[in-house]
Order: sequence, then C-alpha cells, then structure tokens
Amino acid sequence: MNVAVLLFDDFETLDVFGPVEILGRLKDHYQISFYSFLGGLVKNQHGVLIQTENINGLKNGADIFLIPGGYGTRREVDNVLLIDKIREISQLSKFVFTVCTGSALLSRTGLLDGKSATSNKRAFDWVTTQGKNVNWIRKARWTKDEKFYTSAGVSAGMDMTLGFLSDIHGIEFARKVAFEIEYDWAENMEDDIFYEQ
Amino acid sequence: MNVAVLLFDDFETLDVFGPVEILGRLKDHYQISFYSFLGGLVKNQHGVLIQTENINGLKNGADIFLIPGGYGTRREVDNVLLIDKIREISQLSKFVFTVCTGSALLSRTGLLDGKSATSNKRAFDWVTTQGKNVNWIRKARWTKDEKFYTSAGVSAGMDMTLGFLSDIHGIEFARKVAFEIEYDWAENMEDDIFYEQ
Repeated sequence: MNVAVLLFDDFETLDVFGPVEILGRLKDHYQISFYSFLGGLVKNQHGVLIQTENINGLKNGADIFLIPGGYGTRREVDNVLLIDKIREISQLSKFVFTVCTGSALLSRTGLLDGKSATSNKRAFDWVTTQGKNVNWIRKARWTKDEKFYTSAGVSAGMDMTLGFLSDIHGIEFARKVAFEIEYDWAENMEDDIFYEQ
Repeated sequence: MNVAVLLFDDFETLDVFGPVEILGRLKDHYQISFYSFLGGLVKNQHGVLIQTENINGLKNGADIFLIPGGYGTRREVDNVLLIDKIREISQLSKFVFTVCTGSALLSRTGLLDGKSATSNKRAFDWVTTQGKNVNWIRKARWTKDEKFYTSAGVSAGMDMTLGFLSDIHGIEFARKVAFEIEYDWAENMEDDIFYEQ
C-alpha cells in the first residue's frame, strides 16, 4: 500500500512521525511519501524542516491518506483550496487517517458528515465547530467509520495505526510491531485514559 | 537550552521525533536544531528526508546532544570520523541523550566506560559488544548516569525525555506535558514491561 502524508507549516511532529514509524518499518507492506500544497520544504515550530512532493502528484489518491494536526490546522481550515484538495484526495483514497486536530481539516470537507470521529482533548470544542454534522466522540483513543480512522491527541495516532494493522493483518501482527518499537499499545479504541483527566 | 539532534542516513524515525515532540513544544525552554556530518538532506528507510546543518556548527557543544538509533548505527559505529565528532561534542555538552541503539555509537567513544546505560531489547547483544566496559542494564526503560541519559527501544526515548523534564522541572511539569500529548508515560525508569516479553 502507498501511504501519502499531508504536511503543512506548523504540523504537529508526532502526529506525523508516530504513524510513519509504525508503517514505515513494514517496508514489504507500506511505502511512505510526504506531500504539501506546493511541494518543497515544510517547517514546523519544533525546528523540523522536511522535504515534500507537490500534492498534485496525488491525483489518483492513495491507499492511505494521512492528515495530521497541529497549530497549522487553525489556519488551514480556512484554506479553501487545500480543503478542496483534501476532499478530492480523500474520496479517491482507500483509507483516510486523521491524527489530533487533523479531523478538523477533514470535517471541513463534509466527508465526515453523519460519521463518527474524534480529536485532541484540549482542542475538542474548537474541532467540533468545524464539522457540525459529525458524530463527535469525546471518549475514544481512536474511531473507525468505514474508511475513516480518526485519533485523539498526538500519541493516539500510534494506537490508531496499530489498530489499523490489527484490522488488516490481525492482532498478533500488530502486537509484534508494538513490541518491536517497545510501545505500550492501548489495544482497545474505547480505552481512553485521558478522558477523565 | 539548545537541543542538537544528530542525524545520519537510516536513523530511526521515532527515536528522533518522540523526544523532539516533547522538547519542541516547550518553546520557552528548548530550541531544537538538526545536524549531520556533512549537513544537507538526510534520509531514512521510512521515506523521511530532513534538512540538517553541518555538524561543525556544534563546535561549542549543546545543552542537550541527542543521538538516535536505527539501522544506520550498524554502519556508523565504524565511522571513526563521526565517532570522534560524537566524543568531542558529548564532552562539551551539558547533557547527552541516546535512544535505542544510539547508545552503541556513544559507547564507541569510550565516554560510557564505567557508566550505566541501556539500549533496544532486540539489538542488546550487539550493542554490548560496542562498549565492553559499560555497565549495560537490560531491564530499564531508561538510565541516567551523571550527564548521560540512555533509553531502551524507540518509544522509550519519550519516557526518558519526560523523565529528564521531571528531573529539571519537577514531576508535575512532566506529567502535564505527557497529558498534553496524550502519552501514557512510564514514570519509573525501572518499569520495563518489555523486559519479560
């Protein structure tokens, strides 16, 4: 499967590189590429400068289209051209993943209307205003509704990605990957220890 | 504090970006820069292409010098010029962090001789051959010995970095950061659920 990661300035570091660690190490199954609206170097507030391809290279969609969160989403929800691209690519893709406030961007396309989704705890109230017809679930490590996987804040993207591996390859496969990266995977999408805090 | 991250081809993605997420979001305390032996773009097997500065820019050391692991360490342990640079920068730096097999690189400098350190579970036997006078600790989420912090595999770099925040800013500060990124922090460096597996 090809995995296309959308980047924009001020994306959240771990939203991207948690899932990339997990899928990237499975080279026989997943190949990862990074895209941005114009291509070239994309930066964030953590000092990361990463090379990307132009999003027009995704005109056929991807097997997995990953949309991270981060401060940049506050700006990009109003970027009509980017939201149109996200809608187009998401429609063509086999699976769409969002991490953290990435679900705000996806909800702006309308594609999550009537579907279940979640997001970062601390930005939850803002995110829900971006998609008023979405069934927002506050207590969830991640959600799955048809082809759409959405996760809670930052680290939860890793649990969601392991959950996806479990759905596709079986739970023992996912557990083996979690063990290899010594990650204490929250196996149940409804186990959300941050909900009460 | 300035944080200097060493990159080389085939570094492990999360070894780098887990700690970068945690320190990078604390912009009032930590500023992150990425370095490599020659500078320029560094790539890994997960499709990541990241811009770096030339390591000679670190001639005064750093407050925190972070050395990740990854397949590239198998090659770089024999790169005498790089090991010399790592020794020089580590001596000048206030703190030195290693994640996963990054401790193999650091142990090659001799600076870990007589000190406690740990590494990735699956590469442990190889790592110990790189530093025969190191007190290698197999059951540890991370270790701290004077200015040297070393972590177990991949994800453990995040627990170690939160442990460092706890040492410097207090445990409530570290817990708050873990909560913000919805990370289930293993607070005790000796709690190593992967040791028995």
